[in-house]
Order: sequence, then C-alpha cells, then structure tokens
Amino acid sequence: MKRYTDRQWMESMRISFDFNNMMADVIGEEEGIKKEDLDSMEDQLKAAAQAMSIKRKEGKMDWRDLPYDQDNVVEDILKTASEIKKEFDAFVLLGIGGSALGPIAVQQALNHLHYNELSREQRGGNPRFYVVDNIDPERMEALFEIIDVEKTMFNVITKSGSTSETMAQFLIVWNMLKDKLGRRFKDHIIATTDKEKGNLIKIAREYGLKTYYIPAGVGGRFSELSPVGLLPAAVCGIDIREMLAGAAFMDEICEAENVYDNPAYMAAALQYLAMRAGKNISVMMPYADSLKYMADWYAQLWAESLGKRYNLKGEEIFAGQTPVKALGVTDQHSQIQLYTEGPFDKVITFLTVGRYRTSMDIPEGFEDIPAVSFLGGHTLNELISAEQAATEYALLKAKRLNRTINLPEVNAFTVGQLLYFMEVETAFAGELLGINAFDQPGVEEGKNATYALLGRPGYEEKKAELDARPKKKDEYII
Amino acid sequence: MKRYTDRQWMESMRISFDFNNMMADVIGEEEGIKKEDLDSMEDQLKAAAQAMSIKRKEGKMDWRDLPYDQDNVVEDILKTASEIKKEFDAFVLLGIGGSALGPIAVQQALNHLHYNELSREQRGGNPRFYVVDNIDPERMEALFEIIDVEKTMFNVITKSGSTSETMAQFLIVWNMLKDKLGRRFKDHIIATTDKEKGNLIKIAREYGLKTYYIPAGVGGRFSELSPVGLLPAAVCGIDIREMLAGAAFMDEICEAENVYDNPAYMAAALQYLAMRAGKNISVMMPYADSLKYMADWYAQLWAESLGKRYNLKGEEIFAGQTPVKALGVTDQHSQIQLYTEGPFDKVITFLTVGRYRTSMDIPEGFEDIPAVSFLGGHTLNELISAEQAATEYALLKAKRLNRTINLPEVNAFTVGQLLYFMEVETAFAGELLGINAFDQPGVEEGKNATYALLGRPGYEEKKAELDARPKKKDEYII
Repeated sequence: MKRYTDRQWMESMRISFDFNNMMADVIGEEEGIKKEDLDSMEDQLKAAAQAMSIKRKEGKMDWRDLPYDQDNVVEDILKTASEIKKEFDAFVLLGIGGSALGPIAVQQALNHLHYNELSREQRGGNPRFYVVDNIDPERMEALFEIIDVEKTMFNVITKSGSTSETMAQFLIVWNMLKDKLGRRFKDHIIATTDKEKGNLIKIAREYGLKTYYIPAGVGGRFSELSPVGLLPAAVCGIDIREMLAGAAFMDEICEAENVYDNPAYMAAALQYLAMRAGKNISVMMPYADSLKYMADWYAQLWAESLGKRYNLKGEEIFAGQTPVKALGVTDQHSQIQLYTEGPFDKVITFLTVGRYRTSMDIPEGFEDIPAVSFLGGHTLNELISAEQAATEYALLKAKRLNRTINLPEVNAFTVGQLLYFMEVETAFAGELLGINAFDQPGVEEGKNATYALLGRPGYEEKKAELDARPKKKDEYII
Repeated sequence: MKRYTDRQWMESMRISFDFNNMMADVIGEEEGIKKEDLDSMEDQLKAAAQAMSIKRKEGKMDWRDLPYDQDNVVEDILKTASEIKKEFDAFVLLGIGGSALGPIAVQQALNHLHYNELSREQRGGNPRFYVVDNIDPERMEALFEIIDVEKTMFNVITKSGSTSETMAQFLIVWNMLKDKLGRRFKDHIIATTDKEKGNLIKIAREYGLKTYYIPAGVGGRFSELSPVGLLPAAVCGIDIREMLAGAAFMDEICEAENVYDNPAYMAAALQYLAMRAGKNISVMMPYADSLKYMADWYAQLWAESLGKRYNLKGEEIFAGQTPVKALGVTDQHSQIQLYTEGPFDKVITFLTVGRYRTSMDIPEGFEDIPAVSFLGGHTLNELISAEQAATEYALLKAKRLNRTINLPEVNAFTVGQLLYFMEVETAFAGELLGINAFDQPGVEEGKNATYALLGRPGYEEKKAELDARPKKKDEYII
C-alpha cells in the first residue's frame, strides 16, 4: 500500500496554518486583526466562498481538477521519464515564469540540495536537471559548457507557444541539435504547451515531437501540478502520484466554506484585512533550504494574481501586495533588523518543518568559552527550530504580524498540499479583492515594446511610439 | 601595465547612474520627484555630506579605507590563495549575513555561472567554492556528501566570534577534521574575525590557526572589501587588486559634495524623497544572471542599515525601505504585472550591463511562423537589452519610479565600483534619515531568545520570560 492511500499517515502529514500572531487578542489591538473584523466580513466571505464553488463547477478553475483527472497523463509521464533516464545524462527545461518556478521549487524541496553535483549513481540513475529561465547569453553559454547536448533532453515549456524568451532558446537548441544529431534531433525535444493554440503546438505537430498538454483553463502560475511540473519531477525521481495525492488532500480540506475550517480561506482573509490596514508587503520565510524556492514560486503566484489596476467592476484600484522572499535562519542576519524595527508594513509567513529528513549533532567543545560551548550537545535541528521560535517571539514582541505554515515533514505529499494551499489562498484573495486573479494584462506593454524594438512585423506603430519618447536628459545621468 | 592603472580604461569602465525616470519632468508630476524638492533639501544634503566627511576623518567609517590600506593583507591573501589551490579541492566558507552575502555575490558576478560543475582544469586549477550560510541539517549533510573534508579548506568567518550559527558549524567541522586528520587538522581552517574581541580569535590564537582580521571599525555588511571577501575571491581566481581599484575609483567619484556630481549621494537623496512619498519598497533588478546575488547583498545592506526604530535624537521613527530582489528578464514573468499595475509603493533599480562577456546568436527558423521567426538573426544580447528597455518604458508609461545603474561590463573593476557605490548610498541615506546606519539593535531580542531556548547559562531570566508567554490558542491553528 502506498502511504498516500493510508488515511492515518495522511492525517499525520497534514500541514497546519497557525495565525495566532495575526490576531489582536494575541499580538495586541494596535496591529492585530480583531475577530470582529473577520466576523463583520461574514457576508463577503460567504459570497467569495460561493463564487469559488461556482467558478469551479463552471470550469473556470481547471487547475483545481489537476489532482484528479490526470491518471493517463501520469502514466505516460512515468513511462517517458523511465526512458529518459536510460538515454540521457541531463534534462534541461527551457521555460520562464510559471513554466520554471514550480519545477525549480519542487526539485529543491524533494531532491538532494546538491543534486547536480552527485554522481549518477548517487542520483539514483536520474539525469542532472537544469532550468534555464533567463536569456542572459552568459548563462546560456555556461550551460552548454557543462552539458553534452547529444546526451541531453530538452523540455521546452510555454503555454501560449509565443513566449519570446523560450522560443529564442528553442531556436538555439533546435539548430544545435540538428547540427549535431541530424535526423535524430527530434528525439531530444519534448514540448509542453497548449493543445490547440500557439506556435509551439504547430511546430510540435509538424515535426512529430513528443508533446504534453497544459489544459486550456490552467494558467501558467497555476500549472505546476500539470505536466509542466510533473514531467521534470518524475524525471528526477520524485513521486508525482504522492504529490498529486497531497494536493487532493488539501483540496478536501479547502472544501469547507467557513474560514475557520478552511486554512487557505482564512489565510487569504487575514491577508486581505492586513492589506486594508496598509500592510503592502508579504514576506515568505521558509526555515529550510529545501523550501527556499517555494518563496519564489509563491512570489509569482501572489504578485501576478493580485497585482491589478482594475477590479471586476472596472474601477481603478491598483491592488496588490508585494511578495518578498526570505530564508530562515540566513535572513535573520539580513532582514530581521528591518522586520522588527522598520515600518509596520508587512506580514511575515514562516514555513516551518516539523521533522527534518536528517539530524546533525553539534559536538561538545571549548568548555572554557561558554558562548561557544553551550551549543555542544544540541543538534542543528534544535538550533534552527529554536531560532525560528525566537524570531517569531521577537516579532510578536515588536507587534509585527506573522503566521506560520507548518509541514510535518518535507515530502511529495506535503509539498503537494503546500502548492495547492497557496493556490487556493491566492484565488480566494482575488475573490475578496474583486479582481480577476487569473490574467496578467500588465505585461502586454513590455512585450509589445520588445517586439517593436526587435522589429517584429506588425509592431511598426509601437516602434514609432517608442522612437517618439523623449530623449533621456544627460543631466540626469551621472 | 595592469588595466586598472590605465586611466583611459578606467574611465571607459565607469559605472553610471541614470535617474531620468525618477524625475517629475520625465515621469510626470504625480509621481516624479521635482527638482525643487531636491533643491529645497540643499542644506540637509550639505549637512549630510559634511557629516560623511567628518565621520570618515574621525575614523568612524573605516570601510572607506579598505580600498587603500590593505597592501600587505592582499599580498598575504594572494600567497595563501596560491597555496590553497595546490592542496585543496574545495574551499568552504562558514559564515552568515555580512560574512556570506558579499562572497556569494562576487563569485557569481566574476566566475563561471556553473563554476562548481566545471572540471578542475576548466576552473583554472582553483578549488570548488561553497558558502554555507544556514544551519539547516539537510543542507549541512548535503555538503558533506559532495566534498572530501580531507581535501577541503574551511574559512570560518565571524567578526564578533560569537555568531551561534557559524560557531555551531565550526564545532561540527572542527570535530570532523580532528577525527579524520589528527594533528594536521588545523591546516584546514582559516579564521577571519576581529583582531582583539570575541571567541574565535581566542581559539585561533590558542591553536595557532591561520587568521585574517576584519578591521574593528568595519561592520559585517560593509566588510566585503576586507579579507571577508578578498580571500574567497582570490582563492577562486578573481583579481582582488582590480576589485579594490574599482572601489577606490568610485571613492574618488563619491568625494564630490554636490549631489548632482555624486551618483551615490544622488541615489540616496532620491530614495529618501521617495520614502517620504510613501515608497516603502526598493526593488533591485539586475538584467544579468551574474549580478543576481548583488541584489541579495544589497538587501542586507539596505535593510539592516536603514531599518531603525529610533533616530539619533532618540525619537521613534520606524524607518526603513524593504529591499526586494528581482532578476531581469526572468521576473518580468513574475513581478512586472504587480510593478506596473499594483500600488504606487516602490522604486525599481535596474542593474544593466553594457557588454556581456559573450554573445549568442538566435538562428533563423520557422519562417512560416512570424511570431517565432522575427527572433532569428538577432542575438540573445539584443533580446535581453530590448526587454530591459521595454520594461523600463512600460514602467515609465505606468508612472512607476525607476532608475538604472549601468555597468559597461561585469568585471572586478566594475564590481568593486558597484559595491562601493551602494555602500556610500546606504551610509548617505542613513545621514539623511538621521539614524545610525551601522548598528543592528533589532536582532538582539531574537538572539537572546535563542540562547534562552537552548539553555545558555546567564539567560535564565529570558527563558522565564519565554516560558511565561501566553500559550498559543488552538482555535487559531487550523
């Protein structure tokens, strides 16, 4: 029996949401959120919860089906992954934003922290894994110096099939593979894209590339549990069925309509009230290197979903809360000074781990130096946990809003829960703000300006607009 | 002749600060800073500039001497580095905060982006380089699985000699080396710490460890140009004399008392005015993977220096601007939606590169798909530069304050300039805010609570205080 079908184990792995230090009766009336504030939102919360249910039923939140409707896809992915392992030394993901952040976060969470530096044997026979989510020529060149393209599988991921960065990388790799491998070059590319729309699917069909589909209703930043995230994870030996089971488990928890029973809804409601009280910054601070890039994944999800000029009524609201990535304990020596003494403008979310996957003793020593010797006999585990508790306490004393998401352990099941939790929190926050959490109109201007600057046909007007912008003043460049 | 003694080359490598898009006559009256606002600050600016000069003369800003007074240290470091290269396969830095962020940023900027994955030959015979700036037991274990401690040099860095995290790592490594190497174990440790104060210097003296000193007046976050940063950089083959020359070059530029001639002062003055206008977020967004961790280094510098509860008069001001790390173009697909459409609460600083150290062509292809084929014939260099210009334009159109620091090229000389530029900007911002930019009183509470939780003698009272804190309410954990 797989452990993720064992109800008792699943319950023991349930992640929890602790919002004590958000509440006025714990952190004080000045900064804390009063229960009355929450209660007075009852109608709004109920309406938002109903909207979530209705949208789901109407097929407007297809990402919520990902934990359930992918049996065939998963089977195909596992088969493909085992073939890739046999043939390839490296697996390179070409993608950016929602096509990259999830795979990076999950790999960091569930594999060795120096995975690519292990021997193949230590990696369990799995290939090295690289995500190239930028177009810096130095980085691209650096990649080609450490991989052998003839032993590399490239997974090009773009939902729209028109992402310039990814398609530029694709052109480079396509050409290089053709040069080196002749007719076999197509066996080195897997496309992950929309089933119908876009350029990548056209190319994939024309050349008969192996292809996975991102369901039409699943946007980039909500796509980690689709083939976008599942294929790379499976290739690196991660149990993707367990990850999906974790997401399904959290989905059950998130069925509750009452915020007091629904941790994701409660998390969103509290952030909403905090935003209303001027907390325009949301810090995500995992106390585990394995969860470091969850903060990056969350940063896109939260920023792009909620950062909106207009609400659904068309009113200008300039909504949004800026996500900040921090890492415990590291950033205690970088950011905590500001968090405890600076403006009262943020909510800090700790990600804590109940049991790390290893333990390390701090040996006794230097008995004549008490400031050092007191550490001996403890473990690093005790030290990191004590520091998290101490930081939480210091923030509480300084009246800084904070909350804690605890993972009993970092494994595929809890990571699946965490991803899904944050997705539901984000969608629900979108409902409360009355915005569309699933679009990103604000990136169009930059995209179009790029097209214009590179002379893409059809963008002549935008080019003229750019050419007409006032020249920079020399006196303002020093 | 070394290029960094060639005035013409130096001038061609001068970094520039472009603040067009901060100014009202460029970005509009609503959001932009008016020249009058700057001019009306004349007295305050003059006073701050004078305070900078006086403090420097009085020896209260010893970090400003680092570009000049380290000839002997540099010589010793270069000798040590060349010995390390002969004997060791890996160089591991144990440190956190100011002892880690600079070395990470400089290594990323000036060495191969996959340095540790290169062969020793490709690395120019230099050892692999790891910075362990956390106490996560999983990360510590992962490190020991990829290094051979018998071929590893450990550089333990803590100015105070009492940093719990670093001393815990030190105890672990100390014990391990003694076990494996017997009497030779001391040859595997270099201590970098204060010359007089603290526990590490005591231990170093007692055991005769090779030691480098952090000058007494140089605080952690201003210490990158001391042996803290110089030794690791030298070990990895970076030209530290050129880096120091770059800092000295910027120091000359920053001698000017008038903000219109002094880019670091101007940068600080503009941030000060932006903060006053409610911009409580400072985004640092390099358009180069090589500069990615400069944003992390800056985040500590800016947050810890300016995040202060009290000003020098003892008034409660809760100052500070929260630094946010972003990466171009990557975060265009994550954060730009928020930056263009969300609240008007931030200043975005681009770090741009004039000439990347390599160029990569995007091949022609897919002529029947114009949305892809328009990329062909360009280079990745053109694409990344166009995207930066396009993003800057989109922000300008959306009236979002932004500014650009341009490095003609990324090399040791420009990196030295950049580090020094940001240090001066930070110190000057501290003057304008009327705070002490060089302390960090806000971290004491958390440190003491950690000591108490781990049972350090002398912290019984704090322990009692912690034990007496109200128990968490179960209803607030779901």
